[in-house]
Order: sequence, then C-alpha cells, then structure tokens
Amino acid sequence: MSELVFYDITCNSSKSKAWSANTWIVRYAFNFKGLKYRTEWVELCDIEVRCKAIGASATRLKSDGSPEYTLPVIHNSTTNTVVSDSLAIVAYLDNAYPDTPRLLPPGKTGLYSAFRETVDDSITFKAYRLNVHRVYLFLNPCNETHYRGSREQWFGMKLEEVAPPGSEVEMKVWKEVENGFKKVATWYDIEKDQDGGSGLFIEGGQTPGYADFLLAARMMWIEITLGDTEAWARIKNLDGGRWARFLEQFNQYNVVL
Amino acid sequence: MSELVFYDITCNSSKSKAWSANTWIVRYAFNFKGLKYRTEWVELCDIEVRCKAIGASATRLKSDGSPEYTLPVIHNSTTNTVVSDSLAIVAYLDNAYPDTPRLLPPGKTGLYSAFRETVDDSITFKAYRLNVHRVYLFLNPCNETHYRGSREQWFGMKLEEVAPPGSEVEMKVWKEVENGFKKVATWYDIEKDQDGGSGLFIEGGQTPGYADFLLAARMMWIEITLGDTEAWARIKNLDGGRWARFLEQFNQYNVVL
Repeated sequence: MSELVFYDITCNSSKSKAWSANTWIVRYAFNFKGLKYRTEWVELCDIEVRCKAIGASATRLKSDGSPEYTLPVIHNSTTNTVVSDSLAIVAYLDNAYPDTPRLLPPGKTGLYSAFRETVDDSITFKAYRLNVHRVYLFLNPCNETHYRGSREQWFGMKLEEVAPPGSEVEMKVWKEVENGFKKVATWYDIEKDQDGGSGLFIEGGQTPGYADFLLAARMMWIEITLGDTEAWARIKNLDGGRWARFLEQFNQYNVVL
Repeated sequence: MSELVFYDITCNSSKSKAWSANTWIVRYAFNFKGLKYRTEWVELCDIEVRCKAIGASATRLKSDGSPEYTLPVIHNSTTNTVVSDSLAIVAYLDNAYPDTPRLLPPGKTGLYSAFRETVDDSITFKAYRLNVHRVYLFLNPCNETHYRGSREQWFGMKLEEVAPPGSEVEMKVWKEVENGFKKVATWYDIEKDQDGGSGLFIEGGQTPGYADFLLAARMMWIEITLGDTEAWARIKNLDGGRWARFLEQFNQYNVVL
C-alpha cells in the first residue's frame, strides 16, 4: 500500500512527543492539506542512521565540514520520493498534490527561505536559550550525550549556564525574545494597515500561508518545550495576548498522528 | 495638468544626484511600470519642511519620540494623494495603476516588509559604515550640520571614526558586508535550485519583483556613494562577480528623470 511517511523527532515530554520547531510545520502542512500520512518517530541520536537508511539527503554541513542529517524528512512510497528540509517538503507537497490548498505561492521559495531565516534570527535562536536545557531534561536517556555535546558546542558553554533561571543572563535573553516578537508584530501590523488584511495572518485574508504556519510551528516548539511554566505564560501574554490568539487559529491543524 | 511628483533627495556627487537607498526603489517602480512622473529634488535638511508643506505623513519616530519625516514621498495631483515610505508607495502604485506590471503580489506587504528588514540588517546597515563619511563629503554645504549630527548620534561616534580606511575596524566591517551578501545569495540559490528559477531574480522567472528591486536599490546606493573606488570594485567582484551581473539586469530601469 502506498503511503506518505513523516519522520519526526520524539521525546519524553508529558505535554506532547512532537516538539521540533522544524517538523511542526510539516505536520501543519499535512493537516492543512488533509493528506493521509503516518508518523515515524525517531530518537534524536538515531537521525543520521535513519536518514541514510531511507536515502534522505543531508541538509547542511557541520562545523567540521561533514554532512548533517536533520528531520523532518518525508517518504512518498508511491513515487519512492524522499525529501529533506521543512521548506523543501512544503514546496514538494504543494506541487505533488495540486488539488490541496497551497502554503507557498509558486516560485517564491527563496523569498520564504529569507522569511524563515529572519524569524529564526529574531525569535527562534533567542528562545532557544530559554529551552535548550529543558529539552535535555525530557529527552530519552539514549540522546543525552549526543544532545549535550552538540548543543554545548553550539552555545560554547554548559547547558546549565546558557540562561540559568532567575539570572541576569536570563533577563537579557527575555528582553531579546520580547524584542523579537515585537519586530515580527510590526510585519503583521503592516499587512493589516497596508493591505486591509484580517489582522490574523501575515499572508492576508482568512487563511494562513507558509509564513504563518512557520511562526506557529516555532511557537508550538516554545510551548511544548517550556511546558506549563511561567515562561510560556509570559510569551502568551506579550503584547496584550496577541500571540496566544494567533496560535489558537492553528488548533484545527495540530492533531498529532 | 495632473501629474505624479516623486520627491527624491539630492546631492553633489559627480556620479549621480540620485543616491538614496530608499528612493531608488520608487524610481525603479516608476520606470518598470512606464509611468510618467516628475522628480522634485529636495536637500536632506529640507525634508521635514517639504513633507509638512505637502501633507506627507512621518514614517517613524526619532529617539526622542518626535515624528521623523523621510523621503521618498509621492504626490498624485489627479487624486491629491500623498504617500510616504517606499514600500507603501510601491503598494499604492501597484493598486492605483492596475494596468502596469506589479512589483508586489496582492496582500503580501507584511511579508515584503520582513524581507526589506532582513536585507537591511544583512547588507544595508553593514555597508552604511563604509559610506556614511563619504556621503557627508558630497552633500551640499547646507546639510552638513544636520547630517553629521544625526548620523553621529546614530553611530555614537564621529563620522571619521566609523570605519577609517585601512583600519582594523574597516576590515571587520568588510567581513560583515561580505557575509551579508553571502546570506542573501543563499536565498537566490534556493530559488534557483528549488523552483528551477532563472537564477537571475529571487522572484523567479525572467522579471524582477519587489524583492529584487529592493536589493538593486540598496546596491545602487552603495555604488553611487562609494563612487569609483576599490570598495565598489570589491563588492562587484564578490562571489565571482555575481552581484555586478545582478545589477546589470536593472540598467534598463535606472534612468533618472
């Protein structure tokens, strides 16, 4: 039987085992399009082996120049197509299933990759400091060494030192996260003021597009990884609760299969 | 007689009196659309008075909270419409002249404002350090105090100290400028690789869109302000001459009227 397989990264969180910022957007895409798919859960430390086994391409290079394998990856067994990278997967699904609603307008993948990069610079990489240690605590034991090693290399310090709760460093990180959300809010405001949009989505109108799903995916990652903490409540309450209302629009697309 | 008036900022450069990164994109829009217009040249120090005289809105707030008036502004005397801000002007022209080629797809102004911000963070504000003192040298005398005061407040130092030629600071600035262009190049490459685009424009295909005109406008600002220096030659030669070839695509739209 032919099927679409969605490779996602699992964890031990009581909130949800789907926690990855990059895989969430693909789940949103599947659900938004109403496509039938099956999720294959992969431990973080097994990603490289699994990717090689299914013939998925690496998505970037590590600092030592060796290929890095990441999820999401999808496998379409009907055509034996394997696609890596969330943006490339969304573009693929838009083209392979033309009767389903699109997330990307045709021929704009470069533009949306710029949008992804600026959202990640503004919000994702800032908030990463708030949750990098918490993620460590809910990973299954097999991932501990792998995760700690790669993330401590990334930050250049112990996970416990990145933003210790209550520290001055943490306060500075919070300021950066809040400024990031403020920056993104200006783009949404321009859409509303300039194009007379709904005020809900940056893509205008009543239906979200890739840029909106991307932001929602980053917020789901923050929500799941921060759990029911004051930190998540703080983000939900930013700018008069604007982002909590934004994320509510995506509840209909967040079923985890 | 009804007409479109384009308010642009003049200077004393031997290369061109049109030098502003923000006004260039409006000139491109007029020329790309084949619209008839007349340029009204304004000295930098006269912008606020002129904007108030024609009823143009301020586009942002200064650090002291007072309104800041900027060019470009356009005035359509047929409808007595005045529009400030380059992106808003392009959106206005797209809507007011629906029989001319569009620069922006409908309902995407917020998305393109994000693109503008990330291009400016990556390239414009980096290259600003290379040309801020040179611009001072080709402004007409009436602007000197105004320009020096506002720019030195922006950078928190004397213009002569921002990136002195041959200094270590200048080398660091160059590295940032080069990294900025490399980052933008990855978006163009994704467009080509993912969408099978022409490789010329991030908007895909054979015709530039807003994002391409924006980048070209930033490059024109760099070219005019750096003049025939080694610095401009260095930018043209980045990445195998890629950006020189890019800018050549816009020669047909750069007539200054």
